[in-house]
Amino acid sequence: MGASEFALRRNVLARRLVEHELDALVVSFGPNVRYLTGFTGSNGLVVVMPDRAVFFTDPRYRIQAAQEVDCSIRVVSGVMLLSAAQYLRRMKSKRVGFEKSRLTVEAYQTLKDALPMRSSLEPVVGWIERQRAVKSPTEISAIRRSVELNSRAFEQAAKHVRTGMRETELAAELDYRMRRQGAEGPAFETIVATGARTALPHAHPTSARLVHGALLLVDMGAMLDGYASDMTRMLFLGKPGARIKRAYKAVLEAQLAAIDAVRASVPAKAVDRAARRVLAGHGLANAFVHSTGHGLGLEIHEPPRIGKKEKTPLETGMAITIEPGVYLEGFGGIRIEDTVAVTDNGCEVLTPTSKELRIL
Amino acid sequence: MGASEFALRRNVLARRLVEHELDALVVSFGPNVRYLTGFTGSNGLVVVMPDRAVFFTDPRYRIQAAQEVDCSIRVVSGVMLLSAAQYLRRMKSKRVGFEKSRLTVEAYQTLKDALPMRSSLEPVVGWIERQRAVKSPTEISAIRRSVELNSRAFEQAAKHVRTGMRETELAAELDYRMRRQGAEGPAFETIVATGARTALPHAHPTSARLVHGALLLVDMGAMLDGYASDMTRMLFLGKPGARIKRAYKAVLEAQLAAIDAVRASVPAKAVDRAARRVLAGHGLANAFVHSTGHGLGLEIHEPPRIGKKEKTPLETGMAITIEPGVYLEGFGGIRIEDTVAVTDNGCEVLTPTSKELRIL
Repeated sequence: MGASEFALRRNVLARRLVEHELDALVVSFGPNVRYLTGFTGSNGLVVVMPDRAVFFTDPRYRIQAAQEVDCSIRVVSGVMLLSAAQYLRRMKSKRVGFEKSRLTVEAYQTLKDALPMRSSLEPVVGWIERQRAVKSPTEISAIRRSVELNSRAFEQAAKHVRTGMRETELAAELDYRMRRQGAEGPAFETIVATGARTALPHAHPTSARLVHGALLLVDMGAMLDGYASDMTRMLFLGKPGARIKRAYKAVLEAQLAAIDAVRASVPAKAVDRAARRVLAGHGLANAFVHSTGHGLGLEIHEPPRIGKKEKTPLETGMAITIEPGVYLEGFGGIRIEDTVAVTDNGCEVLTPTSKELRIL
Repeated sequence: MGASEFALRRNVLARRLVEHELDALVVSFGPNVRYLTGFTGSNGLVVVMPDRAVFFTDPRYRIQAAQEVDCSIRVVSGVMLLSAAQYLRRMKSKRVGFEKSRLTVEAYQTLKDALPMRSSLEPVVGWIERQRAVKSPTEISAIRRSVELNSRAFEQAAKHVRTGMRETELAAELDYRMRRQGAEGPAFETIVATGARTALPHAHPTSARLVHGALLLVDMGAMLDGYASDMTRMLFLGKPGARIKRAYKAVLEAQLAAIDAVRASVPAKAVDRAARRVLAGHGLANAFVHSTGHGLGLEIHEPPRIGKKEKTPLETGMAITIEPGVYLEGFGGIRIEDTVAVTDNGCEVLTPTSKELRIL
């Protein structure tokens, strides 16, 4: 049997260390640790070196680490960073990288104080995140399974939607359907909003009841085997008026234009611009208050950001959301969101759910 | 109407600023922001000054912030820390506190670079967390409601437990019951483990099926109106053998001894010692691999830690878990956990669920 996908990922990172003349990189950010080792617990740290990697965890995870992690494991009591520092000291590591955008000032100082004077701590930003942004075929499959599970959960729960139901009840139903199919849980707090509350882009579900003649927004994602999905769909209880139909059509047109703009080597901002241009054409430029999308994988939000100013070129294997929306205070909001995988010539829309305004 | 609970909390913090001659404190850690402002969104920052507080968020949260936050609000695009720095510059703040154990090295540098040379950044550790550790009566009520909801969800789901059910199915059922009663969701990934997997203190539920003659561990908590609960109970499908009964009795005895040791002004480690001593008496000292408990509130884990070395004295109003456990690889694990509120003369066990080994 060849090296595990985790070992391959560590090798890519190890080459980067050599290029930058680092003796080691201390990684403690959970999703990065999972990416490099397979560890699914909440408290782990990995020291990656050019020729090896050592994983640290606490006694609660002794058995689990042995099952999941394929590099050398040390189970330690007390502060893990101190054990890592002790190890680096013994290995005589001089230039030690740390995750500048993840490590707190306090943790940085703990590490610095525990390393010998001759060692230097070198800031590293986004190396693992950029590596993570381009998914392997195995990872795209994992995201696809998460997306498909999420869409099935939506369809199952949609059958139960009726006037009088509370937002929280529908959210409970959606989460239940995800879990029943084996999801670890929702990838974020499921958003169910009705009527004017749809104008809050990140509304928590409330005890408000679904009423006839109102918009209903559902934004949901599952976490399955560690990988996230993300989808937004709009429903309407009754017969939508002309203003809603117009706004819906504009958002759908913007979403399709953005999807159409996705392709390897295109800068992320071009995708955002495609959505924004369509909405501007409908006089809705100011109603679109967030960016067009984001990467997803081991986290629900990860690079690349599909925003106005993002020059990052898209790459084959990136998994991103496309989710333009318009929000009109007092009236309501409309958002349509799919998860897509970037390919050489365009993208594959992973989300199988119909994008028609669903009339109930 | 008097000042809101949030304004009172900010006032306590403001007095602290004055004592330490700080002109401002930049708070960006989510639960701390929520504690000080009531904001429930994911992206907010508050600058607390001796005589005022200013809340920053992004355009997605314009409407929500206006509904939730009772201090001055600025909706800003771009990096919030830069807007905060600009504000501090205009206010001519000289000594500016930051959350040393929360702010990343990168965010610290962004802030530092954006402040004038004459300003200094002063590390602040645990001020808000210590304030949060002692709950107000309103907060204890919120935790009690969360605990009671969680216990009801457990009872409802327990009726559906049967051999052949998957761990993930039972976890789905538990989460659904929480959600149906209005919880935002589980406070952490619900743990359902059977047989030898109960020996993993933080097992994710798997597709393993519940079988006759096996231990079943359920560790669950709800998040309700922002406040967490946490409970662990053991079930057995069939007739437990002598070894399991003995171990269960030992853990229960340890848990009751620890609860008995809880009282204002007692150091946290005395509670841990009470549990540990009982288990040692049963020859199980080495099988107890974690600490006896932890504070909970806006976070599922917050100060105080009820650990071996924790000298922090307990205070009336603290809400903590008491959860000793024993873990025997290949055999199984047993843990019993309640949420309790510290009082002057002891504690109130908030968890209403029976602690007998539940035979199904």
